[in-house]
Amino acid sequence: MALGVDGRVFTYVAHVLAVASAVMVLVWCIYYRGGLAFEATNKSLIFNIHPVLMLIGFVILGSEAIISYKALPFSKEVKKLIHLVLHAIALVLGIVGIYAAFKFHNESGIANLYSLHSWIGLGTICLYAIQWVFGFVVFFFPGGTPSLRSGALPWHVVFGLFVYLLALATVQLGFLEKLTFLQNSGLDKYGPEAFLVNFNAIAVIFFGAFVVLATVSTPHVEDPNSYAAISDG
Amino acid sequence: MALGVDGRVFTYVAHVLAVASAVMVLVWCIYYRGGLAFEATNKSLIFNIHPVLMLIGFVILGSEAIISYKALPFSKEVKKLIHLVLHAIALVLGIVGIYAAFKFHNESGIANLYSLHSWIGLGTICLYAIQWVFGFVVFFFPGGTPSLRSGALPWHVVFGLFVYLLALATVQLGFLEKLTFLQNSGLDKYGPEAFLVNFNAIAVIFFGAFVVLATVSTPHVEDPNSYAAISDG
Repeated sequence: MALGVDGRVFTYVAHVLAVASAVMVLVWCIYYRGGLAFEATNKSLIFNIHPVLMLIGFVILGSEAIISYKALPFSKEVKKLIHLVLHAIALVLGIVGIYAAFKFHNESGIANLYSLHSWIGLGTICLYAIQWVFGFVVFFFPGGTPSLRSGALPWHVVFGLFVYLLALATVQLGFLEKLTFLQNSGLDKYGPEAFLVNFNAIAVIFFGAFVVLATVSTPHVEDPNSYAAISDG
Repeated sequence: MALGVDGRVFTYVAHVLAVASAVMVLVWCIYYRGGLAFEATNKSLIFNIHPVLMLIGFVILGSEAIISYKALPFSKEVKKLIHLVLHAIALVLGIVGIYAAFKFHNESGIANLYSLHSWIGLGTICLYAIQWVFGFVVFFFPGGTPSLRSGALPWHVVFGLFVYLLALATVQLGFLEKLTFLQNSGLDKYGPEAFLVNFNAIAVIFFGAFVVLATVSTPHVEDPNSYAAISDG
């Protein structure tokens, strides 16, 4: 379904929102929350790695992986390689980010895996890994038969978008959960930090919306082979 | 993009999940949380109206409105009427549900509109109302020119799905926020009520996924006019 808008416009807006989101999460975790550290007596610094890696490493890099396959003017094989390598880096950074959350909990005596954020987040990273392995085997190496690939492509796109939307929802849940904890411990409900976190969350929603729009809108094709690449996977 | 699956299958699964979600939210609010009331000395009973109306009234009825336009074997005009009436009822029940949350806050001395749930929720209901008015004017009465309608239809679908996904995300945020408050007040993090709420939230995710799949998958057409109805809006 064509929206009658050049897909590049959505891509540009998405990148502006990605930069804004990344800056906001860094300002929050470094300026307001004291910085990042894997080893620290102030255990909060270990936690701070979690939102930074999940947003910049997992979601933003994963988004770039999604956009790259649609927007870059390279050959099918090159774009496929960029797509899978970016997703692999996003997955590894996501796993390290989740490890930081568990490390923070364990060293602070906080219970693990009771919240909706943790349930959906863990489900998301598992589905992301399954999606990556499935895509690698069917579309890259060893690669399925042409009929398997063309049959699998719509499912790859739909399941990929589902997992992506789950990741965006998990980010929202994470921002809300952490801010609620901080507000229960006395943080001003209408203060600058609370507004920064909520604006960060909203920026991530619009970022995700523009990534999806860039993906579903009419492809921008400089390389004449790239439309075929999208069609036959 | 055809998934090669009869859209009816997604519709049936969506309905099973809708019933499961509705039962779970009722069990939560009535059995665990003491029931529903618009006037009560126990202000929690006023709050309990909020999740029930937002989930059953706003999200589930709104989902039926979405599915109905794609799945029902009626003429274009009849389906359009069902689509807009169901969305109107969902919108009104959603507004009443939000009113219940404000009433609970005001009568209990709780601050309004500081949380991400409230921000995104209020944004969602406003966008939902705008979408409804836009759809009514362009597609129903007085109705735009054929070229306006065909140009507006993809935006109606994309913007509608965006608002729908926001509504689903708001439900997740609401379940997490309320459960976090209850757990901060001593509710068992791994107890049956916590699990019920988390499972309810996850059922809503899968429900929404199947509603979207039913909408984007190949239309099920018993009435030969209904595919044209989808195409020309």
